[in-house]
Amino acid sequence: MDSNSHHLYFGHIHLSSFVAMASRSGADVNIGKPIRCKAAICRKAGEPLVIEEVELEPPKAWEVRIKILCTALCHSDVTYWKMNLGPAAKFPRILGHEAVGVVESMGEHVEEFKEGELVVPVFFRDCGECRSCKSPKSNVCSKFGNETIHNMPRDGTSRFRDMKGETVYHLLSVSSFSEYTVVDVTHLVKINPQIPLHMACLLSCGVSTGVGAAWKVADVEEGSTVTIFGLGTVGLAVAVAAKQRGASKIIGVDINNEKFEIGKKFGITDFVNPSTCKEKSVSEVIKEMTKGGADYCFECIGLASLMADAVNSSRDGWGKTVILGVEMHGSPLTLNPYQILRGRTIIGSLFGGIKPKSDIPFLAKKYLDKELSLDGFISHEVGFEDINKAFDYLLGGKSLRCIIRMDH
Amino acid sequence: MDSNSHHLYFGHIHLSSFVAMASRSGADVNIGKPIRCKAAICRKAGEPLVIEEVELEPPKAWEVRIKILCTALCHSDVTYWKMNLGPAAKFPRILGHEAVGVVESMGEHVEEFKEGELVVPVFFRDCGECRSCKSPKSNVCSKFGNETIHNMPRDGTSRFRDMKGETVYHLLSVSSFSEYTVVDVTHLVKINPQIPLHMACLLSCGVSTGVGAAWKVADVEEGSTVTIFGLGTVGLAVAVAAKQRGASKIIGVDINNEKFEIGKKFGITDFVNPSTCKEKSVSEVIKEMTKGGADYCFECIGLASLMADAVNSSRDGWGKTVILGVEMHGSPLTLNPYQILRGRTIIGSLFGGIKPKSDIPFLAKKYLDKELSLDGFISHEVGFEDINKAFDYLLGGKSLRCIIRMDH
Repeated sequence: MDSNSHHLYFGHIHLSSFVAMASRSGADVNIGKPIRCKAAICRKAGEPLVIEEVELEPPKAWEVRIKILCTALCHSDVTYWKMNLGPAAKFPRILGHEAVGVVESMGEHVEEFKEGELVVPVFFRDCGECRSCKSPKSNVCSKFGNETIHNMPRDGTSRFRDMKGETVYHLLSVSSFSEYTVVDVTHLVKINPQIPLHMACLLSCGVSTGVGAAWKVADVEEGSTVTIFGLGTVGLAVAVAAKQRGASKIIGVDINNEKFEIGKKFGITDFVNPSTCKEKSVSEVIKEMTKGGADYCFECIGLASLMADAVNSSRDGWGKTVILGVEMHGSPLTLNPYQILRGRTIIGSLFGGIKPKSDIPFLAKKYLDKELSLDGFISHEVGFEDINKAFDYLLGGKSLRCIIRMDH
Repeated sequence: MDSNSHHLYFGHIHLSSFVAMASRSGADVNIGKPIRCKAAICRKAGEPLVIEEVELEPPKAWEVRIKILCTALCHSDVTYWKMNLGPAAKFPRILGHEAVGVVESMGEHVEEFKEGELVVPVFFRDCGECRSCKSPKSNVCSKFGNETIHNMPRDGTSRFRDMKGETVYHLLSVSSFSEYTVVDVTHLVKINPQIPLHMACLLSCGVSTGVGAAWKVADVEEGSTVTIFGLGTVGLAVAVAAKQRGASKIIGVDINNEKFEIGKKFGITDFVNPSTCKEKSVSEVIKEMTKGGADYCFECIGLASLMADAVNSSRDGWGKTVILGVEMHGSPLTLNPYQILRGRTIIGSLFGGIKPKSDIPFLAKKYLDKELSLDGFISHEVGFEDINKAFDYLLGGKSLRCIIRMDH
């Protein structure tokens, strides 16, 4: 789908229409009470989601119930959808964590949000109070010690129940594949209602990760050389942000050759397919292309072997490798200490160093000021009833982001 | 030896005496000609050095012949002294790379130095012209592609010959265990003659490495927690520099318990002996001591397993590990990618990020301005004829730095 075809989406429908709809549907009479709504439930690993009616409790203290306006499918959803082993494999569950919504009601002690405000729920916490949140150096909130990815973070219970009364688990404190969801205040960000909804949705996860990694973590500068391992949404967002900073060469590394043409629209200037490198290693090829190694490398897949390739592709003296991907097989990262010693840096980053409550509004402003292009990331759009198609698009390697309209 | 006993050393003898001596010895009549002098030659790996007469060629273009005033024994000398395999094991050789000297004569094109100037020869290059040297981000000079550690860097030949006419190899472009040596201009730094000679000698390698790592690479700040793996000269210099920055806790990690008492004089506030940690790992112990992990960790030994311990001992969110040690067994560094992902940084540094020509004079100024204490690093002092005692002291774990007086 062409990056200019935004008229196909509902992005230019703004908040006011949805707030009007929310009022018409009588949401305000439900304050403090459970509501029933439709949700796409994942009942078993790898099986199609089933749209069912669920009961959603009112928000408890420091929680907000929001009406989802649109959501998108991210690779992490697919990871949890497939996961059938380990403590994180909890079913039935409501997936989804990239979204934008409107505040429906608030629990006790919530002063930051008001009914009807446009908000972005975020899988990543920002309490604003702990040592990490107060420090400009970290975005890894340390508010709640025991992380739970299938329940609410504060009391470790679920707000969803199916029609048989069975608990339905959350995902990553968001669960946006539902008409309504309950989110902790530490996972919710107010966003300028001037921003088109689908763009706000993009900023809640993947795109912000890539942009944050390039701007905040690496701090890519004009004239520098950049190599991006993995040209999915995160990798392409790194490219957009690096291009905006004036990087002179932005090399994409991907095993899918089609990604070069796609990548060019996002700023990719050169391309390496590791499976066709023949006698040379990827890092040798990149060192040749950059006359000694890239200034900045980004690993956006989650493979330890690629992380090592990224480090080896970075320049002696100041080469910086940013690791964004969550290693998908639990493999260790093995490096040559002497390569590191020669002035290389490896820096890990969750959510691209983004502090949700301050940085997402900042990125929204950059978008509205036309200093950050978000064109091209949305490749598909489906109605909520067709949510399983979003999985097909992503698994088929054809989709960057598929927007799922909640069709209220 | 007490850190206050500087009167035992010849540190307060200043340059003028040596220049006078140099003149008296008629050095100026040797300009452009080979000279004969005494050097401590390592003829075979691990065997005592032998003081012999050697012939030293005059400096070629971009080279300087210097008279060594005092030198010191560093662990790297011991490494090369022991090395009996591989291309770097070249004998006979003149070891030594921590030193201070006076310019005796210059080859063609040398405009930066004059006869009689106090200089510090440095194993680490600073050409001032390449992309790395011009960048504030790197100290890894890329001037000469093929590094040679046993010959002159520019033409790859030796300037030393023994009395049988056999080539005697250099070490690390310095070879300071000789009354005179020839050094490339890129390996030579002018230093303020107000500085006591033994202090200048300290700044030419180990101490600068530690201070640079804390100030330039890590940028340790007030109130932060620091863990130092290995309390040799480099590790203790990290401690001094971290203390000067106001670090609130400086934990030393060493298998030699005596290092705690020694370390206290340099700023070490707490101590962990990994061999007595019992059920807990070092990183678990350090995480408890620092309530979550140290802000800054420094690996000053060169063991991949300790490098991993250092990374694991650093704090979630912003923990930074600086790797200073050269891995001594060629082992790979194995890390858990998820530990890195949570906001940790690993940064390698040769010579503590020090750019010799600008940073060594800066550190000398800091010393002269009493903003950098160098007390306590010199534990022993011997005359040149007793140079093998310096090896005994270091190998016995009793010595930090043993100053070797050239006794001209």
